[in-house]
Amino acid sequence: MASSSNAHDIARAAKLAFEQSQLIPSQERIKALHATRDELETLKDEVLAANREDIKAAQIEVEAGRMSESLLNRLDLGKGDKWDSMLQGVLDVAGLPDPTGNVSYASELDDGLELYRVSCPIGVLLVIFEARPEVVVNIASLAVKSGNAAILKGGKESNQTTRVLSKAIAAGLSKTSIPSTYVQTIQTRAEVSSLLELDEYIDLVIPRGSNSLVKSIQNSTRIPVMGHADGLCNVYLDETADVDKAVRIVVDAKTDYPSACNAAETLILHQSLVSTVWPRVAQALLAAKVNLLCDPPSLDVLRALVDGTQNSSTSGTISSDFQNLVQGSTETDYTTEHLSLTISVKTLPSLQAAIEWINSHSSHHTDTIVTENEEAISAFVRGVDSAGTFVNASTRFADGFRYGFGTEVGISTGRIHARGPVGLEGLVIYKYMLRSKGKAGHIVSEFGTGKKQYKHKPITATQVPF
Amino acid sequence: MASSSNAHDIARAAKLAFEQSQLIPSQERIKALHATRDELETLKDEVLAANREDIKAAQIEVEAGRMSESLLNRLDLGKGDKWDSMLQGVLDVAGLPDPTGNVSYASELDDGLELYRVSCPIGVLLVIFEARPEVVVNIASLAVKSGNAAILKGGKESNQTTRVLSKAIAAGLSKTSIPSTYVQTIQTRAEVSSLLELDEYIDLVIPRGSNSLVKSIQNSTRIPVMGHADGLCNVYLDETADVDKAVRIVVDAKTDYPSACNAAETLILHQSLVSTVWPRVAQALLAAKVNLLCDPPSLDVLRALVDGTQNSSTSGTISSDFQNLVQGSTETDYTTEHLSLTISVKTLPSLQAAIEWINSHSSHHTDTIVTENEEAISAFVRGVDSAGTFVNASTRFADGFRYGFGTEVGISTGRIHARGPVGLEGLVIYKYMLRSKGKAGHIVSEFGTGKKQYKHKPITATQVPF
Repeated sequence: MASSSNAHDIARAAKLAFEQSQLIPSQERIKALHATRDELETLKDEVLAANREDIKAAQIEVEAGRMSESLLNRLDLGKGDKWDSMLQGVLDVAGLPDPTGNVSYASELDDGLELYRVSCPIGVLLVIFEARPEVVVNIASLAVKSGNAAILKGGKESNQTTRVLSKAIAAGLSKTSIPSTYVQTIQTRAEVSSLLELDEYIDLVIPRGSNSLVKSIQNSTRIPVMGHADGLCNVYLDETADVDKAVRIVVDAKTDYPSACNAAETLILHQSLVSTVWPRVAQALLAAKVNLLCDPPSLDVLRALVDGTQNSSTSGTISSDFQNLVQGSTETDYTTEHLSLTISVKTLPSLQAAIEWINSHSSHHTDTIVTENEEAISAFVRGVDSAGTFVNASTRFADGFRYGFGTEVGISTGRIHARGPVGLEGLVIYKYMLRSKGKAGHIVSEFGTGKKQYKHKPITATQVPF
Repeated sequence: MASSSNAHDIARAAKLAFEQSQLIPSQERIKALHATRDELETLKDEVLAANREDIKAAQIEVEAGRMSESLLNRLDLGKGDKWDSMLQGVLDVAGLPDPTGNVSYASELDDGLELYRVSCPIGVLLVIFEARPEVVVNIASLAVKSGNAAILKGGKESNQTTRVLSKAIAAGLSKTSIPSTYVQTIQTRAEVSSLLELDEYIDLVIPRGSNSLVKSIQNSTRIPVMGHADGLCNVYLDETADVDKAVRIVVDAKTDYPSACNAAETLILHQSLVSTVWPRVAQALLAAKVNLLCDPPSLDVLRALVDGTQNSSTSGTISSDFQNLVQGSTETDYTTEHLSLTISVKTLPSLQAAIEWINSHSSHHTDTIVTENEEAISAFVRGVDSAGTFVNASTRFADGFRYGFGTEVGISTGRIHARGPVGLEGLVIYKYMLRSKGKAGHIVSEFGTGKKQYKHKPITATQVPF
């Protein structure tokens, strides 16, 4: 009960801070980001001391086998240029174009009656993420820049660090007229559970973490949730695929960063390539130590290849790679996000079959075709129902920075509001402002059959003129 | 269990129909709408016969006191020009601009690497609505035009009518290459419950009905829900309000169509107007037979007015209006959607207080200020956190047709994806198409420090060139 009433106070304070901030010019939000960066620099020693405490506690967990080494590594804020790039990130976000106050539709409904659709923040965001403490600063920057209030919950492993980071953010905000409750952090799961019930105060939940985290949140709230469930990306080698492109793209999509959600998990082969392009691709993947989970046609070809080269000088390596890295696939391999140097391989008879396979097996994140055929390009990019449909390019390009958004909130596999990499634009919505300049104001009962008619004359405007 | 497996088949068929439709040119969707209109005309007698059956059954319910007369009236498809305007509506939607295939962002990421953000349908819509059978045809038209598959559930009172209407829609679709399962109708609540669990097939739920219907759906699904909960609209008369504008706008907002969600439910008075503008507004409202639920300051003024005019010739009328129509308000009156000739009245000391009051009491639908002050205008339209913030105009303008969208799916009080009146644009999202024209395709590992840099050069395009 204590956490529930605490959560209520936090949520109400966030909503109030959001509402109060609507009359504060957006320049003030930029000022807040610069002040936050300076406060972080001032508190650097305190942050890093807290971070060392978190790391020490995590090391005990790792030694006891309760935490992975990679999670421990992600905790460390003092490593390399992590600190400096976190601070630079705040300034980068400050420098991005203002996503609010932009007019996307304007129309004169009648003489002196002007309608403007204007971008504005969504309201209060609840962001839940795991491990990496610098995400607190990233997300706070995005929230402030886009004019949203935010409540942030990091992983419990980084509680000490995020506590001090939050202090710096609040100190930065206090240098401006933006309420310091504009960005708040919470520490417990119980508070999250309570907040998920408060749809009168919280407008959007953004979970950044595992598939199970996202699903469990979606199941326990009526607040909209923006996030991505899985990254089951496919590379399809079409009948006319260029073999060199195929090799480069498959290897990059699989090996450039295997644990990323935009890494490829399944390779689909047009059956006509199975004994031509596929062996070349397979050799390149094996050379990169990628495990191949093959369906019978693709497996048979590799087996024949190994058998046929047993007398050549390289046969030893190929045989041992084949022995160690190649095996038959099962049905579940095609719906598994490997997130490692493993790829499932499927042979299909046609482009149409590949599109259908992707639509029923992928997570609608990003899928790519390798082809030289214009008709195949047109069919693939339209027929594949994913946030990203690519041609002769690696799935790894699906990323907010690479797309040119400066930074990203995450990648959405949802199908409303925002899809694919989500930049600042995904954190705004719009409102309609309608102004009458008529001498008697404007009323609806004067319009209709035999009365005034609506003009709907477009107005050219990028900003609201009042 | 029967309905659950049936629901699964329906949902899967809808998703498949959606996916298949992605390669069908949008011209075919327009053809489907014209064919549907013609099939409706052909089946007119059958539809109206079924409609008479529904009406007959409803009359029994009305006589038994289990159904309201107004619900019965809304059932009748043969009344006035309802049939013709339903058919015209199909052609109107067919003639609207195509909301799909439009490029909203295009960028050259590198030489020969082009990114396009292209509008596309959302997927499968589940639309649940009450009573009026013509809504089946309206929504089916919007779904087909925007390229979404749809599953429709009407009120059980109109089951016979919607069955025949669905037959006409399926017949219209069958004249094209669009699958006939593109638009399906279901009849039972059990099917709705089962469908709400199928988030792998259903992408968006649109409930059109009571607040309790919307909330109950939001609570029982992880599929996104687009709808409006309440229409608690406010009219605020600011310090500088022009009395004639005030009278016209308040009367229009309250009485033009009291049962609409964009009708005003609360009138907020700047305290400086309570003995000047307010009596004039009150007299106009009383003349229109509007019940006034007044807070003490606004009530006192009216009481004094009645007392002071007891000797005038009109005193009888005013006194009797006052006796019959004016009473003191309670707290809950300010969060009640009256939907009738009743308005709550609140006196507040300042614009700032009015903005805060609206933010904490309105349903964030549409609120309007009556003022002659530029600063007040600027503060109100930004400070009030509603889908529509109006100046010297009736709240009744919040409507898709009046905004110039041709038609509307509904009015959203949600805060993501679409807000306010939702036209065809609210039924589309986008996907990112990325095409490499490079000789070797494009891979991510070639970019980075000391390697290639992203260009992010804007491309001018409204359509995808492949």
